[in-house]
Amino acid sequence: MDNDLHLLRTYIERCSNWGRWGEDDQIGAMNLVGPEEVRRAAALVTAGKVISLTLPYNQHGPQTGSFRANPQILTTATGTDHLAGMQDPLPGGFGPAHGFGFADDVLVMPTQSGTQWDALSHIFWEGRMWNGRPASEVTSSGSTSNSIENLTGRIAMRGVLVDMPAHRGVDSLEPGDAIGPDDLDEYLEAHQITVQPGDALIVRTGFMKARRGDWGDYAGGSAPGLSLHTAPWLRQHDIAAVATDTWGVEVRPNEIGCFQPLHVVSLVHSGITFGEMFDLDALAVDCAADGRYEFMFVASPLPLTGAAGSPVSALALK
Amino acid sequence: MDNDLHLLRTYIERCSNWGRWGEDDQIGAMNLVGPEEVRRAAALVTAGKVISLTLPYNQHGPQTGSFRANPQILTTATGTDHLAGMQDPLPGGFGPAHGFGFADDVLVMPTQSGTQWDALSHIFWEGRMWNGRPASEVTSSGSTSNSIENLTGRIAMRGVLVDMPAHRGVDSLEPGDAIGPDDLDEYLEAHQITVQPGDALIVRTGFMKARRGDWGDYAGGSAPGLSLHTAPWLRQHDIAAVATDTWGVEVRPNEIGCFQPLHVVSLVHSGITFGEMFDLDALAVDCAADGRYEFMFVASPLPLTGAAGSPVSALALK
Amino acid sequence: MDNDLHLLRTYIERCSNWGRWGEDDQIGAMNLVGPEEVRRAAALVTAGKVISLTLPYNQHGPQTGSFRANPQILTTATGTDHLAGMQDPLPGGFGPAHGFGFADDVLVMPTQSGTQWDALSHIFWEGRMWNGRPASEVTSSGSTSNSIENLTGRIAMRGVLVDMPAHRGVDSLEPGDAIGPDDLDEYLEAHQITVQPGDALIVRTGFMKARRGDWGDYAGGSAPGLSLHTAPWLRQHDIAAVATDTWGVEVRPNEIGCFQPLHVVSLVHSGITFGEMFDLDALAVDCAADGRYEFMFVASPLPLTGAAGSPVSALALK
Amino acid sequence: MDNDLHLLRTYIERCSNWGRWGEDDQIGAMNLVGPEEVRRAAALVTAGKVISLTLPYNQHGPQTGSFRANPQILTTATGTDHLAGMQDPLPGGFGPAHGFGFADDVLVMPTQSGTQWDALSHIFWEGRMWNGRPASEVTSSGSTSNSIENLTGRIAMRGVLVDMPAHRGVDSLEPGDAIGPDDLDEYLEAHQITVQPGDALIVRTGFMKARRGDWGDYAGGSAPGLSLHTAPWLRQHDIAAVATDTWGVEVRPNEIGCFQPLHVVSLVHSGITFGEMFDLDALAVDCAADGRYEFMFVASPLPLTGAAGSPVSALALK
Repeated sequence: MDNDLHLLRTYIERCSNWGRWGEDDQIGAMNLVGPEEVRRAAALVTAGKVISLTLPYNQHGPQTGSFRANPQILTTATGTDHLAGMQDPLPGGFGPAHGFGFADDVLVMPTQSGTQWDALSHIFWEGRMWNGRPASEVTSSGSTSNSIENLTGRIAMRGVLVDMPAHRGVDSLEPGDAIGPDDLDEYLEAHQITVQPGDALIVRTGFMKARRGDWGDYAGGSAPGLSLHTAPWLRQHDIAAVATDTWGVEVRPNEIGCFQPLHVVSLVHSGITFGEMFDLDALAVDCAADGRYEFMFVASPLPLTGAAGSPVSALALK
Repeated sequence: MDNDLHLLRTYIERCSNWGRWGEDDQIGAMNLVGPEEVRRAAALVTAGKVISLTLPYNQHGPQTGSFRANPQILTTATGTDHLAGMQDPLPGGFGPAHGFGFADDVLVMPTQSGTQWDALSHIFWEGRMWNGRPASEVTSSGSTSNSIENLTGRIAMRGVLVDMPAHRGVDSLEPGDAIGPDDLDEYLEAHQITVQPGDALIVRTGFMKARRGDWGDYAGGSAPGLSLHTAPWLRQHDIAAVATDTWGVEVRPNEIGCFQPLHVVSLVHSGITFGEMFDLDALAVDCAADGRYEFMFVASPLPLTGAAGSPVSALALK
Repeated sequence: MDNDLHLLRTYIERCSNWGRWGEDDQIGAMNLVGPEEVRRAAALVTAGKVISLTLPYNQHGPQTGSFRANPQILTTATGTDHLAGMQDPLPGGFGPAHGFGFADDVLVMPTQSGTQWDALSHIFWEGRMWNGRPASEVTSSGSTSNSIENLTGRIAMRGVLVDMPAHRGVDSLEPGDAIGPDDLDEYLEAHQITVQPGDALIVRTGFMKARRGDWGDYAGGSAPGLSLHTAPWLRQHDIAAVATDTWGVEVRPNEIGCFQPLHVVSLVHSGITFGEMFDLDALAVDCAADGRYEFMFVASPLPLTGAAGSPVSALALK
Repeated sequence: MDNDLHLLRTYIERCSNWGRWGEDDQIGAMNLVGPEEVRRAAALVTAGKVISLTLPYNQHGPQTGSFRANPQILTTATGTDHLAGMQDPLPGGFGPAHGFGFADDVLVMPTQSGTQWDALSHIFWEGRMWNGRPASEVTSSGSTSNSIENLTGRIAMRGVLVDMPAHRGVDSLEPGDAIGPDDLDEYLEAHQITVQPGDALIVRTGFMKARRGDWGDYAGGSAPGLSLHTAPWLRQHDIAAVATDTWGVEVRPNEIGCFQPLHVVSLVHSGITFGEMFDLDALAVDCAADGRYEFMFVASPLPLTGAAGSPVSALALK
C-alpha cells in the first residue's frame, strides 16, 4: 500500500496540469483544443459519414440498479390518448383539439448510467478535484466549479480510434487485461497514426460487444481498460479526452491498491476528460473498412448545471 | 373554422412528403442530408469556432411546472461527503477509499422542458403521425416508430441563421409577430444566402433574450414565430430542420383556429424536424461580427428509446 | 381457452358488484366499511400495539428494473454540506445560516414497486374497469375515475390475518401453491374467526420471508397466492380488501389461460381493493404469540391524483 | 444577534431531551407514545368517523419549483393503450392479453413538497441533529440515523386540534401572526381540553384555506405559525408531535435573527416530530360540529430508507 501510494504520488507529480491554464480554469486539457484543432478536425470530414457512438438509453441498459438505475422514460401524453379522444381538450390547457394530438415524456436517469462524460468535478483525491479546487464545492446542490456544463460547446475535436481487440485478433479483451503505453505506441505505429495535442483518444476493448444485452456486471465489475501506466503517456502527448467502451476507462481490478488510480492521475491532475460506455462497434467496422482511424469527434455534453456528468450523443464524422 | 380546416388541408396536400422516402421511413426530411451535405457543412468550419446553442438545464428554466416541470439534477454522492470521511468505504460497494472520492447525480427532466428536438412521433393529426403511421404506435411504453432515437447519429448539416430582430432593428419580435415566407426571402436576399435542400433553418426572434431569467409565460404562452404560411416555403426549399428560440417554433396565438398548424403541416406531413428553445443569442452576435450566417450545425439528439423528444447539446461550428 | 373464458365469465356474473353502490361509485367494496365497522375495528385496540406492515422503500427492493425500478431516494441537501459550511447562505434563498442546517430529498418510485395498494383504476377487463367505467378514462394524464385518491381517508377497518404457512407447518408456501376457499374456511374455523362484511383479509404465504434480500423473480415471477376460486368466497363474505405478502395476490402461474383472473373477477367486478407486497412477518409472530388474529388495520393510501396505485404505510393495531 | 443567540441557547438548554431515552435513541419524543397512549387514542374512536388530513399530491400543489418541485405522477401503462390493443402482448413480458389490461405509474416528488413529516434528521444545529448525532451521518446516500423510517409503525396517538382562526373569529391568521404559549393555554381552557404527554398538537392557522389553489408564496414565504416561545410549553407538556397547515410550523418571518428557531429548539433538541402542510379544514368543520377536538391521529410515514422526510396519508379518527 505504501509503495502503491508512492507510485501514485510520483505519477501525480509528473502528470499534474494544475495551474497550467490559470488558477480559475475549469476545463483542463480541453484547453488544448483551440480554433486550429477544431478546423483540422473538421477537415477530416471528407466522406460525409456520421457514426453515432452512443448506446440507447432505456431500462435495458447495463446498470443493475443497486447503485445506479437504468434510464427510465415516462409518459405524460400518448397517441393512444389522442386516438381515444382523450386529448380534447388538449392537455396543458391548450383548448380544443380539432384533430391535433401530441405525445410527451419525462426522462429519469443517473447522469452516468449509459454513454457519458465524467465532469472534472466527478472525482476527488484527498479533498481536491481538478486544478486544486476543494471538494467542498461539490454539494448536494451541485458543483460550483468544474461541473459538466463547462464542457458544453466544446468537445469538437480530432478523434483517434484505438481498436485493440482488432489489433490483437480477438473479439474482446478480457477483464483484467490492461492496455499499457507500449501497446498504444505499437498500435499507433502499426496504423501510422501520430497523436497530436488536443486529440481525443477513443479506445475500444470489445467488452461492450461481448456483454451487450446480457450485461451481468459490465457496469461496476471487472473489465479490460487502460493501465495506470498510461497516465504519463497521456500527459506527455497532451491528450485532451479519453473515451472507452467500458464503464470506467481503466482496467479493473485496479493495478495498485488505490481505487481508479488513472482517474486520480489523469482526470484529477492532468485534467483529461473521461468518457465511458461509448459504443464503438460501428465505428470500428467503419475504420476497418476504410483504413482511416482518425475522424472529427463531436460530443458536447448537455449543460446540466452543476452536474458531475452528462449523457451525450457522441458522433464520429469522416 | 371550416375555412381554417380547408386551408390546413390544402397546405397538407401541397406539402406532404408521406411515402417520398419509402413506406417505412422514420426520419422524414432528414433524408435530405446525405454524405455530400455533411461534407459541405464541415467545409464551413474555417475559423474553428464552436458556439453552443443550448440553454442551461436546471430548476430555473422556462417551465412553470403546471404542465412540464423544469429539469431537476439530484445528488447521490458529493464532495462534502468525501470531505466528511463519509465515502470510506466508497458508495457502490467499491471498498476502502484510500483518499479517493466522487460525485454523482440523477437527472429528472421532461424531454421538452428546455432546448430540445421534437421527434416525428411528437405530433398527431387526425390519428396519424409522420409518414402515415398510426398514433396508436405511441403508447405509454414509448413509440415503436418515428421516435427520437431515429435521429441520433444525424443532424450534422448546414445551418443558416435568420436573425429577424437584428434585421428589423428591434431587440425582439413581439408575441403574435409572424415571420412569413416573404420575410424569409427578403432576409436571405439581404444577406445573400441561398438555402439548399437539407439545410437547417435556425430562426431567431429575440424572444428568449427578452424573457431570459424572468420567463413568465415564455413556455406555452403567446410568442413570435414562423407563420403557418411558411409551410409551402419550407417544403419547396426542402428544409430538413427548423429551430427557433421560442417554445413552439410557430407564432402564437395561432393564425387559424387549429392548434399549432405549422406543426401539423410541416412536422407531421413534410417530415421536418422541429427544434425549440434554442439559445441563439451568442450565435447572433458572432454572425453579426463576421457577416457569415451559415455554419456547420451539429445537434444529434440522445437516443432515448421510444421518446417523443430529446434535450440536445446543439453546436454551430464556423 | 374457451372453457377458461367461460369460467371467468361465470365468476364475473356471480361476483359483480357493479351498480351496487350507485352508478357513480368509485370505491367499490370499501363502501362496506362504515362508521360501525370503523368503531368496531378501533375497539380491537386493547393492548396498544402498533405493527408496521410495510417493506422499506429503497434501491434494494424486489424489483429487477426491467419493467419497474426500485424506489430511489435522491438528495438535495445534506448534513455534510452543512458541516462543510456550504449551507451558508441557506439553499432555497433563506439567507444566512447562523448555525442552522437541513437535509432534503426527492423520491422517485413506481407506485407499485413495493408495499402498495392497487387502485380500482389499475385493472381493465375488455375495455372496462370497476363499476363499468371505460378504460379510456385512464390516460397518460392519470385517471379521472376509480383512481387511488378515492381510497384516501379510508382503509381504517378490521383486519384478519390468515397465516397459511404457520397453519400448514411450513416456512413458506411454494410458487404455484393456491389457497382455495376451503383452505380459508378451514383456517378460520381452526382459529375461531368469523369474517364480517367490510373486513380486510390479510393473507400471509411466507413467500416474502423466503425471498427477502435475495429477491430473484419475487416481483413478477411464480408465487403462491389466492386461487381464482376464492372469488365467489370473497364476494359472498363481502370482503372489502385483500392484501398478501406476494407481488400479485393471486397464485402464479395462473390457474386458467387468462392473466391474473382473480384481479379480473374480484378487483374489477367485485370492487375489492388489492394490496401487494405487504410485510406480514412481524404481524404473524405477534398473532402467534397472543393468539389474536384480528386487529385494527389502518392503511390509507397517499392521495396521488389520478394514480393507479400508491405506496402505503400500513399498520396493524391491537 | 447576540441576544438572539443567547435566547436560543437558553431555550435549548431548558428544552433539550438529548439522552433522555438513551444515547442510541432515534425517535425522540415519540417515545412518549407507548401502549397505554395508543390504547387511549383508539378509545376516542366512538363515532367511526375517518377524516383525511392530507393535501392531494399533484402538479398543482403549493411548490413553485425554484427549490422544491410539485409531485409528478408519470405513466407507464394506460387504459387508452389497452383500448387501442397496444397491451397485447402485455407490457412486462406477461404474454397475451386475452382481454386483460392495466395502468401503471411512477411518482416523482420531493419528500417535503406536500403534506409531510420532517424526520429528526431533517434539521441540524451547529453540526448536530437530534440526540447529539453528528450531521455527518446525513450524506447524499441518506442518513444512517434519525431518518424517517424510524417513525414508521408509530404516530398512532391522540391528536388535539387547535383551530386558532375559529377561536379568533377570523378566516385565517395572517403572515407574521404568532401563536404563543398563552394562546395555547387560553384555547385549551376555552375548549376544556387537557393535553397529555405523548399527544400530537394539530394547529390550524387557516392559511392553507386562504391560499388553496392560488398558492403564491405559501411554500417558503411569510406565514402565521407557532411562536418560538412555545418551545418550553411543548417540552413541558411533553408533546410528541406538532403538525400545522403551513409550510414550516413556526411563524414567518422568524421572531429572532436565526432561521426557524423553533425547529432548532423543539425538533433538534426536544425531539418533537414536526408535520407540515397538513390539510385541517375538514377536521376543523367536523370538530366545530361535534364539539370534540380530540381524536385518534394515525399518520405513519413511509419507510423511505435514510430519508429526511416523507409524504403521509394522515387520518383523524373519531
